Amino acid sequence: MKILTREKNWFDQPQNTNENKHLNEECGLFGVWNHPDAAKLTFFGLHALQHRGQEGAGIVSNNHGQLQQKRGLGLVTEVFKDEKDLLDLAGKGAIGHIRYATAGSATINNIQPFNFHFHDGGLALAHNGNLTNAVTLRKQLEKDGAIFSSDSDSEILMHLIRRSHHPEFMGKVKEALNTVKGGFAYLLMTETSIIAALDPNGFRPLSIGKMANGALVVASETCAFDVVGATWVQDVQPGEVVTIDDTGIHTDRFTQNTHRTICSMEYIYFARPDSNIAGVNVHTARKRSGKILAREAKIDADIVIGVPNSSLSAASGYAEESGLPYEMGLIKNQYTARTFIQPTQELREQGVRMKLSAVRGVVEGKRVVMVDDSIVRGTTSRRIVSLLKEAGALEVHVAIASPPLAYPCFFGIDIQKREELIAANHTVNEISELIGADSLSFLSQDGLVEAIGHNELCLSYFDGKYETPLYDYEEEYLKSLEK
Amino acid sequence: MKILTREKNWFDQPQNTNENKHLNEECGLFGVWNHPDAAKLTFFGLHALQHRGQEGAGIVSNNHGQLQQKRGLGLVTEVFKDEKDLLDLAGKGAIGHIRYATAGSATINNIQPFNFHFHDGGLALAHNGNLTNAVTLRKQLEKDGAIFSSDSDSEILMHLIRRSHHPEFMGKVKEALNTVKGGFAYLLMTETSIIAALDPNGFRPLSIGKMANGALVVASETCAFDVVGATWVQDVQPGEVVTIDDTGIHTDRFTQNTHRTICSMEYIYFARPDSNIAGVNVHTARKRSGKILAREAKIDADIVIGVPNSSLSAASGYAEESGLPYEMGLIKNQYTARTFIQPTQELREQGVRMKLSAVRGVVEGKRVVMVDDSIVRGTTSRRIVSLLKEAGALEVHVAIASPPLAYPCFFGIDIQKREELIAANHTVNEISELIGADSLSFLSQDGLVEAIGHNELCLSYFDGKYETPLYDYEEEYLKSLEK
Amino acid sequence: MKILTREKNWFDQPQNTNENKHLNEECGLFGVWNHPDAAKLTFFGLHALQHRGQEGAGIVSNNHGQLQQKRGLGLVTEVFKDEKDLLDLAGKGAIGHIRYATAGSATINNIQPFNFHFHDGGLALAHNGNLTNAVTLRKQLEKDGAIFSSDSDSEILMHLIRRSHHPEFMGKVKEALNTVKGGFAYLLMTETSIIAALDPNGFRPLSIGKMANGALVVASETCAFDVVGATWVQDVQPGEVVTIDDTGIHTDRFTQNTHRTICSMEYIYFARPDSNIAGVNVHTARKRSGKILAREAKIDADIVIGVPNSSLSAASGYAEESGLPYEMGLIKNQYTARTFIQPTQELREQGVRMKLSAVRGVVEGKRVVMVDDSIVRGTTSRRIVSLLKEAGALEVHVAIASPPLAYPCFFGIDIQKREELIAANHTVNEISELIGADSLSFLSQDGLVEAIGHNELCLSYFDGKYETPLYDYEEEYLKSLEK
Amino acid sequence: MKILTREKNWFDQPQNTNENKHLNEECGLFGVWNHPDAAKLTFFGLHALQHRGQEGAGIVSNNHGQLQQKRGLGLVTEVFKDEKDLLDLAGKGAIGHIRYATAGSATINNIQPFNFHFHDGGLALAHNGNLTNAVTLRKQLEKDGAIFSSDSDSEILMHLIRRSHHPEFMGKVKEALNTVKGGFAYLLMTETSIIAALDPNGFRPLSIGKMANGALVVASETCAFDVVGATWVQDVQPGEVVTIDDTGIHTDRFTQNTHRTICSMEYIYFARPDSNIAGVNVHTARKRSGKILAREAKIDADIVIGVPNSSLSAASGYAEESGLPYEMGLIKNQYTARTFIQPTQELREQGVRMKLSAVRGVVEGKRVVMVDDSIVRGTTSRRIVSLLKEAGALEVHVAIASPPLAYPCFFGIDIQKREELIAANHTVNEISELIGADSLSFLSQDGLVEAIGHNELCLSYFDGKYETPLYDYEEEYLKSLEK
Repeated sequence: MKILTREKNWFDQPQNTNENKHLNEECGLFGVWNHPDAAKLTFFGLHALQHRGQEGAGIVSNNHGQLQQKRGLGLVTEVFKDEKDLLDLAGKGAIGHIRYATAGSATINNIQPFNFHFHDGGLALAHNGNLTNAVTLRKQLEKDGAIFSSDSDSEILMHLIRRSHHPEFMGKVKEALNTVKGGFAYLLMTETSIIAALDPNGFRPLSIGKMANGALVVASETCAFDVVGATWVQDVQPGEVVTIDDTGIHTDRFTQNTHRTICSMEYIYFARPDSNIAGVNVHTARKRSGKILAREAKIDADIVIGVPNSSLSAASGYAEESGLPYEMGLIKNQYTARTFIQPTQELREQGVRMKLSAVRGVVEGKRVVMVDDSIVRGTTSRRIVSLLKEAGALEVHVAIASPPLAYPCFFGIDIQKREELIAANHTVNEISELIGADSLSFLSQDGLVEAIGHNELCLSYFDGKYETPLYDYEEEYLKSLEK
Repeated sequence: MKILTREKNWFDQPQNTNENKHLNEECGLFGVWNHPDAAKLTFFGLHALQHRGQEGAGIVSNNHGQLQQKRGLGLVTEVFKDEKDLLDLAGKGAIGHIRYATAGSATINNIQPFNFHFHDGGLALAHNGNLTNAVTLRKQLEKDGAIFSSDSDSEILMHLIRRSHHPEFMGKVKEALNTVKGGFAYLLMTETSIIAALDPNGFRPLSIGKMANGALVVASETCAFDVVGATWVQDVQPGEVVTIDDTGIHTDRFTQNTHRTICSMEYIYFARPDSNIAGVNVHTARKRSGKILAREAKIDADIVIGVPNSSLSAASGYAEESGLPYEMGLIKNQYTARTFIQPTQELREQGVRMKLSAVRGVVEGKRVVMVDDSIVRGTTSRRIVSLLKEAGALEVHVAIASPPLAYPCFFGIDIQKREELIAANHTVNEISELIGADSLSFLSQDGLVEAIGHNELCLSYFDGKYETPLYDYEEEYLKSLEK
Repeated sequence: MKILTREKNWFDQPQNTNENKHLNEECGLFGVWNHPDAAKLTFFGLHALQHRGQEGAGIVSNNHGQLQQKRGLGLVTEVFKDEKDLLDLAGKGAIGHIRYATAGSATINNIQPFNFHFHDGGLALAHNGNLTNAVTLRKQLEKDGAIFSSDSDSEILMHLIRRSHHPEFMGKVKEALNTVKGGFAYLLMTETSIIAALDPNGFRPLSIGKMANGALVVASETCAFDVVGATWVQDVQPGEVVTIDDTGIHTDRFTQNTHRTICSMEYIYFARPDSNIAGVNVHTARKRSGKILAREAKIDADIVIGVPNSSLSAASGYAEESGLPYEMGLIKNQYTARTFIQPTQELREQGVRMKLSAVRGVVEGKRVVMVDDSIVRGTTSRRIVSLLKEAGALEVHVAIASPPLAYPCFFGIDIQKREELIAANHTVNEISELIGADSLSFLSQDGLVEAIGHNELCLSYFDGKYETPLYDYEEEYLKSLEK
Repeated sequence: MKILTREKNWFDQPQNTNENKHLNEECGLFGVWNHPDAAKLTFFGLHALQHRGQEGAGIVSNNHGQLQQKRGLGLVTEVFKDEKDLLDLAGKGAIGHIRYATAGSATINNIQPFNFHFHDGGLALAHNGNLTNAVTLRKQLEKDGAIFSSDSDSEILMHLIRRSHHPEFMGKVKEALNTVKGGFAYLLMTETSIIAALDPNGFRPLSIGKMANGALVVASETCAFDVVGATWVQDVQPGEVVTIDDTGIHTDRFTQNTHRTICSMEYIYFARPDSNIAGVNVHTARKRSGKILAREAKIDADIVIGVPNSSLSAASGYAEESGLPYEMGLIKNQYTARTFIQPTQELREQGVRMKLSAVRGVVEGKRVVMVDDSIVRGTTSRRIVSLLKEAGALEVHVAIASPPLAYPCFFGIDIQKREELIAANHTVNEISELIGADSLSFLSQDGLVEAIGHNELCLSYFDGKYETPLYDYEEEYLKSLEK
């Protein structure tokens, strides 16, 4: 069979060592100014943002101008295990960062916020996003004698600030922000303030909130406001640089040349359902996407199930619109701690079931609509379809609540190779066969925009139309299109 | 207001140090016979049963008759972190145990399976349940010179076996099983077999499965079969003692005097939705309970939400039956690792939001049906209602997918004091006011039986009719009724 | 060469997996009564006794009758890392134990003090020594239904006490002490006292001291008194059972049939030089042994060096008596933490130098007297001789400050196999050749007695004359003599 | 009493938070080139140098030009616990570093070797010593835009190299070495070589050795050669920069302006007795210092004891020359793991006895010569004298095997404040009274030079004559002289 052969080719090619890789968001930010428990609030804020990264976490506190850092590998609750771990982080200001897990060696040097002590004061920095001209900038800076203490591109902004000849500190910061390109949300902490800045496209969310006692907070997602009892005040807008200090919030901008294109993947997959991005609730957008998908796909089936947890909103929307029962056909084990214990060969052949189980009592003898948020390589989809069929599902119709993901992201999402995307290499019918589904439907791009409710979106994943030059990635990207 | 005063009284009285206490299941069991990776399969099996207990975990393996033990405090993935931790547990047989977290000092001495080396061979033991005559038995055994190595009542069976004068080993075991009273599922491992036994009421589930290669497995819940690729063969029946050895499964019984009354809480709250108990899928039973509840409660509202994760099945059933939209109005943080970092006083006053958040974008301006599985003290319900109202819900109608919980359990569930149960002390209307709900509905007892689909159930939580004598607990229980 | 062949045979035969094995003392005891910091003092006391065992450590405290235990594998400072680890051990009484490292699997179940909770009170137990009728007693107890929670013979006494039909507690204890045979120093802690007992031969040291504030302490060696500021009051005598409680010290005895034969190895090797045993300072006895050895051996040489640390006293005595310079020809690395990093094959072939180095600047071109306390298998001696020769020593004359060690110990020292002792299998000349020395001298037995200064000693290591029956070991021992 | 008042003043003044502070050496270096187990040999080499620092340790390996780093806080055996910890450090070259413990917060950022990845290759750096113009250099570099990743001055050299405009790499290195001032031994590792360099005064020892298989090693002390089976080849001379690569050893120099003044404290206190510095064995020099001290001090006494471990060589020399018996009057506990458990107030008042005990059986009733290597603040000496007197010593005559330590060090020893040195503030008679001794003698400066056997020494500790300008320290030093 031609397809089987191709299937073998597709899934077996060594494109990626991280076989079960899904889309990964690059990091989460949180900051507090003017609260006696700033570091502790930051701990809770980072915990609410934990879904944005699990490789490492750190906090820098500001104790009357003294910046203290603690950082480590692992979850926020692993890095900060008990009160003792927060003891050194006294002070009324703090910024924190969580870092996502990449393939390759994790090293503490890369865990943020970075904290630098200069003879003329301290400066801390945390970054969410991806710079597109980082390689060029770093090389040039090194040629000029710069020494980087991390492998992270986040550090570049610090070198640009320190090397700027602008006489004012904020002038140096603005100059640096205009030099870096790509997607970035930055938090800086000086001895007297927190500075938040967002790239001219505003790819990543970044919001400012206020606590009852007047303390100000800043976070990658609004869900972190709830956990500390803060309420939303304003979003940081594209091209803005906002200073938070003892006198309040000061909004400025480093460029007028902006064009908002929020990363659509934040709505589709990354953000927590209880966050609002640009005023749109994420769960609500997802549920609408499921409803529109139901109208577009018109699948004849018995039940609707979602892949936990990110697809449950869309699945319930699909069920509601289609009138089919919404069932719990897949169970995710809540205890998902990392383990280095590998399944036996026998277990591996059956597919990894440690995290996800099909519910035989639900799916047996049923024609199932399995709603998922997206397909990257297809490996996971193939496994879940297989799980459902082994559990007795008569038919498995895969319905994806976003368009086919065919182009890489260069602004903060960890998919930079087009050859790893199944939809960049196969038709919908081919993918359906490759993953063993009885049918495969994708939400249309118009449907996605309708579900989210506004069109200030980066949709380049789906159409390859990037809103801003790709700089260092341009050549590689063009080459990837030729294949 | 009288009620407000009473509310204060109820929630403020120092009934329980563990303020957010919910019902806790006592333990989970898993065993494998005749598989070269017995200990590793047991690790995966225990991981699937992790919801049944998080205090500690252990495995005893059987390597040609040599029993080796490893056990520790914490989650299965914390006790067994990498392959090295399984290295000493070679052999073709293994039994494992997970222990639930109680208040008070956790000590490794109590972590099971217990493993004893005698001059005439080894014997390991794991236990799920609660004995009602344990205090009397232990005291008598100690008077006769017995030394217990743990505080656990589970150890009693071992002393009874070793002190039995019956000439045959299985005779000793049966004699011991007839001496202990209450709720118990036991796994024993001898040098040549695994022995599984269930109390005459069969309060706890215990099933036997088979792997493709012929290896036999035994588990507290069938969800653990899926994770190792086994299929269900038979349930251990009340009063049975089943021997699993190289020649297969040998079913025997230690008593004919049996009467099956499966713990209804297993269906309502404890068991994983993908498990089947007595042939009934747990998710399906819960969804049916939600449907029946919708018919019984007839609440006028805009949306239905469930309290994650145990109430989502019932909530979707309620939504489906009522025709109201099923929404994600509450989000549970997936990263729920234990932390010893306490919220600030300010945060505590707002209620603990670290684990659960309300989704403002979903509930704001809505009349909400909030479906939960049960109410114990009412503290958690009050907090969630408050969360929803702060997030803008117009009305919060609490619908409980089980009858009022008014009587303690003596057979393996960690609620032994009637004075801690809000429904034992207040009317439904009072409870509704105490938790701040706009209305409160409970599923009827008949509705529960209909949802589960059979009536071989222990329903004493709801009606106080215990199916078996209470022995050591009798006096205290009768006293509690007088209040 | 015949000898070379024999050498190969001797060192290569697989007698012992622990190739560098030296003599190992079995454990150390410490207790405090009537001091508010009882557990902390016990921590410091155990630290002073750390040389008596490194496998594990534990403390049981007595808080108004409540016995609390903490124990773990590793050094005292590893088990009790910070104040937090002592927090649960409140109370005015405490006993502690350190356990020596044996080959084989270390398990926390065997770490003492054992702590048992009975319905009629608590009882803790710690033991230093070795019982000779343990196998027989345990087998009989198990036949009578006893369940042991450890592999340790120390637990036997507890079973005997609990099974005694004597009406008084102290009567039960005495009855039990008369049932166990061999070498034992016991500490028991009841709800109201510490009880110390010593076997009829008094093989192991056990002393009682007093602090300035009246608190009483008991320790295996007097060096532990200094560390807590206590002064010596009395030694526990053979056959005595001493009760320490709020009213003071009460000396009683469980038998009149006593005959003091203190283990000579305590003086030669085990005890710390600053301890006094039966009123004799250990350093002084060792220095005297070096002096007598110098007189007996009359070696023509240039310098005297000792093998650090246990042989430095004897070496300085040898130097002083002989008039030869005392030099530091061997250096022991002070940082001797356990490591699992193995030397490369190349390094192994050169001998393990991680712990011990020869000082070329000292030994080069010199005729060296190398003083050591004893020779067990000869492996270590051979290595040190080789180290010294590679560092340029012209001649290496090995002088041992004790007689040839030719018979095993059954009373608390970890050498129970005659076939492992080089002096049981080879003449002095043969040993000299096997270890590559230019000459080999041993102290005479009379010289040893003279050095120690009294003859209430167990010298069976040297002459095979055991002062008490060997019970379970009798048969094996007689067989070993036939070879 | 005037003196008592002064004593109170001296010891009670808050000069130093680290009350028991002794002299601390700043770090140890080890490197290997051309050996398949380079990292493992470095582990063993660092272990032999552990006495030079206990705060942290690190290794950078060179795997075909790829530099990999592992570092951590604690002892070498704590940072590298098992083979797994060396797994990532493959390659035929490696350099390692151990860092000494300072007061203040230890942070992993300061643990060396530093390892930098540049777009044009990797470069690692380890440093032993102290730069005298570091503050000035760092400030200037930061003004020019440099960002330091550590608080350590060691990093300065790297910035100087990277900013040098010299066209050749070795030219950059030499330029940088001529810019830094003070005491320094550097190891650099490039993709193809190890580079060793020593300051123009050669304050710190640095030697090169060779293994049997041709691999080359470099170490701070020759004792590290023995542990890996290497033999000494050459010392790195003042002003030299030596390249070790696949073609062998290439000796070059960065300056002709050199004047060797080896730190005399290396001989007196820091180095291990089995090391040779400039061809002089350290133990031998110390023993000679004890002999000369005996001739100079002529104390009438009964016994000689040394303060373990650094003073044992001098004490045995003293005993030999004086004809008095050399005794073990002080015992150091071999188990010296760090603990955070603090002694009780009661114990503190008696002086810390956890590490050091007096041997009553040895010193009671004796007139004791207590030999120590040096006195810094006097706190420790006072405690030891007190220990000996409490143990019954009739008289305690303190004999110091070096001249009074009256001036700070700026080249790598952690005593930079003259006001902390008791001999800078008190006469010998005053010190004697302050520490409670019956007499106090110091070795003369001539005696020290005679004992070491050459006069290429830095003796500024004793006479304040610094061999090289003090740069950033000049002003502070001159001020301290005025007091």
